[in-house]
Amino acid sequence: MPLAFPTEVTVVEMLPRDGLQRLDRFVPTEEKIRIIDALSQTGVSEIEVTSFTHPTAVPNLRDAAAVTAGITRQPGVTYRALVPNVIGLERAIEADIEKVNALITASEEYNRRNQNMTIEENLDEIIEVIERGHEAGLVVEAGIGMAFFSPYEGRTPPERTLAIVESVVDAGVDEVTLATSMGMANPKQVAGLVESVFTRWPDVDLGMHLHDTNGMSLANTVVAMQLGVERFDASVCGLGGGVILPKSMEDIGNTPTEDLVYMLSEMGIETGVDFEELTSVAADVMDSLDVRPNSHVLKGGTREQVLRETSES
Amino acid sequence: MPLAFPTEVTVVEMLPRDGLQRLDRFVPTEEKIRIIDALSQTGVSEIEVTSFTHPTAVPNLRDAAAVTAGITRQPGVTYRALVPNVIGLERAIEADIEKVNALITASEEYNRRNQNMTIEENLDEIIEVIERGHEAGLVVEAGIGMAFFSPYEGRTPPERTLAIVESVVDAGVDEVTLATSMGMANPKQVAGLVESVFTRWPDVDLGMHLHDTNGMSLANTVVAMQLGVERFDASVCGLGGGVILPKSMEDIGNTPTEDLVYMLSEMGIETGVDFEELTSVAADVMDSLDVRPNSHVLKGGTREQVLRETSES
Repeated sequence: MPLAFPTEVTVVEMLPRDGLQRLDRFVPTEEKIRIIDALSQTGVSEIEVTSFTHPTAVPNLRDAAAVTAGITRQPGVTYRALVPNVIGLERAIEADIEKVNALITASEEYNRRNQNMTIEENLDEIIEVIERGHEAGLVVEAGIGMAFFSPYEGRTPPERTLAIVESVVDAGVDEVTLATSMGMANPKQVAGLVESVFTRWPDVDLGMHLHDTNGMSLANTVVAMQLGVERFDASVCGLGGGVILPKSMEDIGNTPTEDLVYMLSEMGIETGVDFEELTSVAADVMDSLDVRPNSHVLKGGTREQVLRETSES
Repeated sequence: MPLAFPTEVTVVEMLPRDGLQRLDRFVPTEEKIRIIDALSQTGVSEIEVTSFTHPTAVPNLRDAAAVTAGITRQPGVTYRALVPNVIGLERAIEADIEKVNALITASEEYNRRNQNMTIEENLDEIIEVIERGHEAGLVVEAGIGMAFFSPYEGRTPPERTLAIVESVVDAGVDEVTLATSMGMANPKQVAGLVESVFTRWPDVDLGMHLHDTNGMSLANTVVAMQLGVERFDASVCGLGGGVILPKSMEDIGNTPTEDLVYMLSEMGIETGVDFEELTSVAADVMDSLDVRPNSHVLKGGTREQVLRETSES
């Protein structure tokens, strides 16, 4: 039986939040606004623009309100923000954000260090975010970090992640996203967990947030797509990673958006993203943030670029 | 229906041939022998040790006979060599090689530049290699380069690759390997071609030789495995690439063996390779050849290394 892939996929751009939070410096507000506005022109359907967290927890994103106030919102683009709790949600509502990513992790230790709550306390908080968010007319997604592996406890037992999915689904969450926050999931584990989720909740709107530490994020994407996942987070230049993880872990970035969009486009899967626009934003990000991209396509080029290069050689 | 993966996979180590041929310098014969002997201790089942090509075509491997004479052959390891023609085969037979990789590409222009033959002429030559090889008791594999994409003609029409498969299968070849020599195949294209091959020749012993230019080689591996492919070439540190391709193309290496073996091991797929041994050879290769590895796992670490790092932090 031929392998089945979707015809359309939603790409969510994470650079402004996941990409900038762990950077070794604060990116000025105007610079953030300029990058988000450029991303808004690429055809991407959704952008996570910032995080409404305590300024001392994520100092790089302490200007969340100023950023959301300053950007030019394009029709057709969903602007979402991460919120770790109800206080963050209230700030997001004030900032006129239409969708929030309510964060919880499946790692007790990471949750304690990052959110200063037990999983249980965090779940109570997230359920309140879902209820209060819905009252305020927001779309609420639950992003489940460390869904596959925790840098403190190792392999995450599937039951633990499934129990969190159950709680947020029961609370009426709009979307669920499984995150490989350490980038240490493999295609078999991804397939297993995604199958379990769809078996129990066939109608859940399930997305993936993949980091690429082990180089398997595109492979993980492909198996998730085969099982029906049609929403993927990614970050321009592959920037990203949790703030509290050791600084020595340099290669824990998200799936580079360029690589994801290029693969999907080569596979004939529609994303709405203009690849040329996207790589021009990526080039600008490399320059202005002075980062080396983790993406393959920015280094090795596209088929078209290769053909051009050989025709000149 | 759950996705199906094999329980066992054969990994073929390509470093001594594909990895060294394009290097900017000649690696001394004793150094090559030392590396091959170290690779022989990793548990890998097959090593492509050299290429019996004209010394001016691939000067880096001009010591093919001395290398094959100098290595210590381990029981259980298959030592194979690339041969582009019958002259190469005769040299391989003299060198007591037990298996040859008979090279042909699906790109008329690449074939002309690299092998100085049309595809038709090359096929005649390869068919003679198969016959003569079998007479001499060798296993003959046909490696089909540019099976998906050519840097000169673009996308390879599947019919062209399938016609080559047909010719070599009709000639009684033992194994067929599809190569993404430019590393520009995508999972959908790989799935399509592999499906076509298995539909027409359900019993063919089909392998994949993947380069990772576009970062999709592990994703391509995963879809190929789902369709029944159980043999994959890879190269330590991800070194590799065609000799005649422009020097500016730096990122055209093979799937790094470390990344492939790590993924398979995390997926519970047996390869026989000892991961610790393999990474110690990789570290040695990095040092002695003074190369930066393309592999993710050497940079981002394994799950075990991450756990160790966080427990100390």
